[in-house]
Amino acid sequence: MQVIEKTKNNEVAGSVAARPGGRSARIQAAIFKAVEELRQAPDGPDMTVPAIAARAGVTPSTIYRRWGSLNELLAQVAAKNLRPDAPPEATGDWRKDLEIWLHQFVEEMSSEPGRAMLREVLGGEREENAGQCSAYTRQQLDAILDRAGDGSQAPTTDKLLDGVIAPVMYRILFTSAAPDHDYACALLQRTLEA
Amino acid sequence: MQVIEKTKNNEVAGSVAARPGGRSARIQAAIFKAVEELRQAPDGPDMTVPAIAARAGVTPSTIYRRWGSLNELLAQVAAKNLRPDAPPEATGDWRKDLEIWLHQFVEEMSSEPGRAMLREVLGGEREENAGQCSAYTRQQLDAILDRAGDGSQAPTTDKLLDGVIAPVMYRILFTSAAPDHDYACALLQRTLEA
Repeated sequence: MQVIEKTKNNEVAGSVAARPGGRSARIQAAIFKAVEELRQAPDGPDMTVPAIAARAGVTPSTIYRRWGSLNELLAQVAAKNLRPDAPPEATGDWRKDLEIWLHQFVEEMSSEPGRAMLREVLGGEREENAGQCSAYTRQQLDAILDRAGDGSQAPTTDKLLDGVIAPVMYRILFTSAAPDHDYACALLQRTLEA
Repeated sequence: MQVIEKTKNNEVAGSVAARPGGRSARIQAAIFKAVEELRQAPDGPDMTVPAIAARAGVTPSTIYRRWGSLNELLAQVAAKNLRPDAPPEATGDWRKDLEIWLHQFVEEMSSEPGRAMLREVLGGEREENAGQCSAYTRQQLDAILDRAGDGSQAPTTDKLLDGVIAPVMYRILFTSAAPDHDYACALLQRTLEA
């Protein structure tokens, strides 16, 4: 049994800016990969710092030194996974783009893995992880609204965050009834007409 | 050093319905009290299952058997602490009651302890903890709206959750800019006028 060497320092370990390809980046990649592999374990994940460290071939103290806690490590992995894979689909009609994007967003976030990622990204000590998640959403919305010409009466990104994204997220996080497509569409229509 | 006896069972331990004054209720009270006391520790909390168990005078396995994980225990403590102390203030004018209640709600939830409680209530394995938090909010809003007479054009509780509570919570959880009173009031006015 490995002894858990937990840092005595109660300050949260900062995320060291990892030079791509450097030693620090390689260690981070190995640890993130170990988290993903443990998640796929057939008997359910044994997601502990010693188990992650053993699989990544590092000591537990490496993980505690860099992330401070298991929750913070999982939050950073979740923030990375919440990064969108591609820019929003472009059909030539920004309203349609918004609908398509929202449909995918609601489907992904309210899925079981989506809910788990949201809980994890909110569970870390550093609020920047959740901020990163919201920044991705904002960037996607900005990209769609940029396609609307002048005089199109497109809402601002803030109005969409307040009127559509926030209620969807609130239902996902705080209620057992996952928001469905009709509910999200109704919020979008109300916000576009306001 | 105490050995951490973690349950091998990956199922989340259910919350045993505690008969008031019974042995189970007394153990739960001692453990919840230990969590609160550790939070007040002058050097910052050493919030680990062995530390909580030692302070409560139980074995770590008692905690793992009943709550399954530290995160789930902290989520249940947070859900209990998020319970409102009193019904919303009654001034005789339901709109004013709503404003007063919202002012307190925003102040409490966006405070440092409030944010920490929200993160904890969302961090447990059982979604019922966050559901309990939302149910309290719903009960408070219901109580105020019940004071509005027929023909008062009061919004529904769902409209208030979507239009006011959700955006406030989204800003608290996902952005570093805490929502202020003016922002919350503007959301409330917009929802009342819709």
